[in-house]
Amino acid sequence: MDTNRPAPRRIGVLGGMGPAAAIDLQARILALTPASRDEDHIPVVCWNVPQVPPRVPAILSGGPSPLPALLEGVRALEAAGAEAIAIACNTAHHWADDLRAEMGVPLIDIGEATVREIGHLPRPPRLAALAATRGTLASGFFARRLDAAGIPWIAPDEAAQALLDEAIAAVKSGDAPSGGRLLALAAGTMHQRGADLLVAACTELPLAARALPPAIALVDTTQALARAVVDFARAPRAPGD
Amino acid sequence: MDTNRPAPRRIGVLGGMGPAAAIDLQARILALTPASRDEDHIPVVCWNVPQVPPRVPAILSGGPSPLPALLEGVRALEAAGAEAIAIACNTAHHWADDLRAEMGVPLIDIGEATVREIGHLPRPPRLAALAATRGTLASGFFARRLDAAGIPWIAPDEAAQALLDEAIAAVKSGDAPSGGRLLALAAGTMHQRGADLLVAACTELPLAARALPPAIALVDTTQALARAVVDFARAPRAPGD
Repeated sequence: MDTNRPAPRRIGVLGGMGPAAAIDLQARILALTPASRDEDHIPVVCWNVPQVPPRVPAILSGGPSPLPALLEGVRALEAAGAEAIAIACNTAHHWADDLRAEMGVPLIDIGEATVREIGHLPRPPRLAALAATRGTLASGFFARRLDAAGIPWIAPDEAAQALLDEAIAAVKSGDAPSGGRLLALAAGTMHQRGADLLVAACTELPLAARALPPAIALVDTTQALARAVVDFARAPRAPGD
Repeated sequence: MDTNRPAPRRIGVLGGMGPAAAIDLQARILALTPASRDEDHIPVVCWNVPQVPPRVPAILSGGPSPLPALLEGVRALEAAGAEAIAIACNTAHHWADDLRAEMGVPLIDIGEATVREIGHLPRPPRLAALAATRGTLASGFFARRLDAAGIPWIAPDEAAQALLDEAIAAVKSGDAPSGGRLLALAAGTMHQRGADLLVAACTELPLAARALPPAIALVDTTQALARAVVDFARAPRAPGD
């Protein structure tokens, strides 16, 4: 191994919500890493354990909290030497502050990563449409970050949200093509309301978005998170770090 | 969660060799699992840490052993609750017995899984061509399992092996299309020598094989391993298990 080039930092991926999203995040991290040999790649430990109480009912209707299951994953990742943790699920970021309070390493925040990604677009959006689960929207997690960054945004109306719910469920059941058709319909109604940017703020949605027509620009929160992970893992270490 | 359907067993994936192969194995496990909800999927913890001394020089020319790094991964996966471990690298199975001696849970063996997969083909191969790294071939790991199952096989000649070495390196550097062209050339020469089945016994090769012409049947060891993982994870538990 080239001892002049220090190994990148080890990243923990907290997944399972759903498991395809965590695999997608790992693939994006790999694709974004300049590497010519195995050992140039970022060391990743992925906790992809989907036996977690569902996040949306926990936020909307007082279902059992996923927090204990999330903390079990965080502890396993920390024990495996993770130097930072990325959560491959937007909705689970509802518990980001609770997790941070128990974590000994930084959380690479998908909302902050997305706002940074929007800031790198060739021109700022006139109006962003936030495509997410009802849980993420009710949580206000993304809204607070968009508001703080001064990015004007709208939520889906009830008809568009019903299409998004179906699109997300289709991806979770392995049917990404149906998910893509439903997402395109939802994106069309938000485009009619003036949105010129779709923020795909559910890790299942980019998996459905590959065939999306280019009538509306897309910011993919999984891609934004992957970029933030690669930046963190490859940043030069301070002396003694 | 449906308490009548017990959760599948938790699987540890020992990866990093290379990291794309471990992501590929996770994707195959997901695709092979019948599931309509997140929690139907198999819980997987993946140690995808590529800072491992290279396996082929360790076998061929006495380079530093990867065994300590492999054992670090095994211990992390066991600590994370893995009930069995699958290694997403054929060559690393050279150390399978050393690992088994230190493991408290079963190893799901890629060689045994592949022999089982060959047994399920519509007709037995006349002659199998073993496409692998020089390390896997020198190790004799696969050869012993094919011999024990009575499957006649050939190794690549020097020209075909040089093509395979290049194909594997191309995949590791992110260039699967070039890998596919090189693999097709190597497969052609082994087909000329009478082989009617290509055993892609390196986890990088299936990533290159997607565009392989159908002149020769393919057994994909990653797919075989994924199937063995799903079978293990979903097998009914004995009382008290």
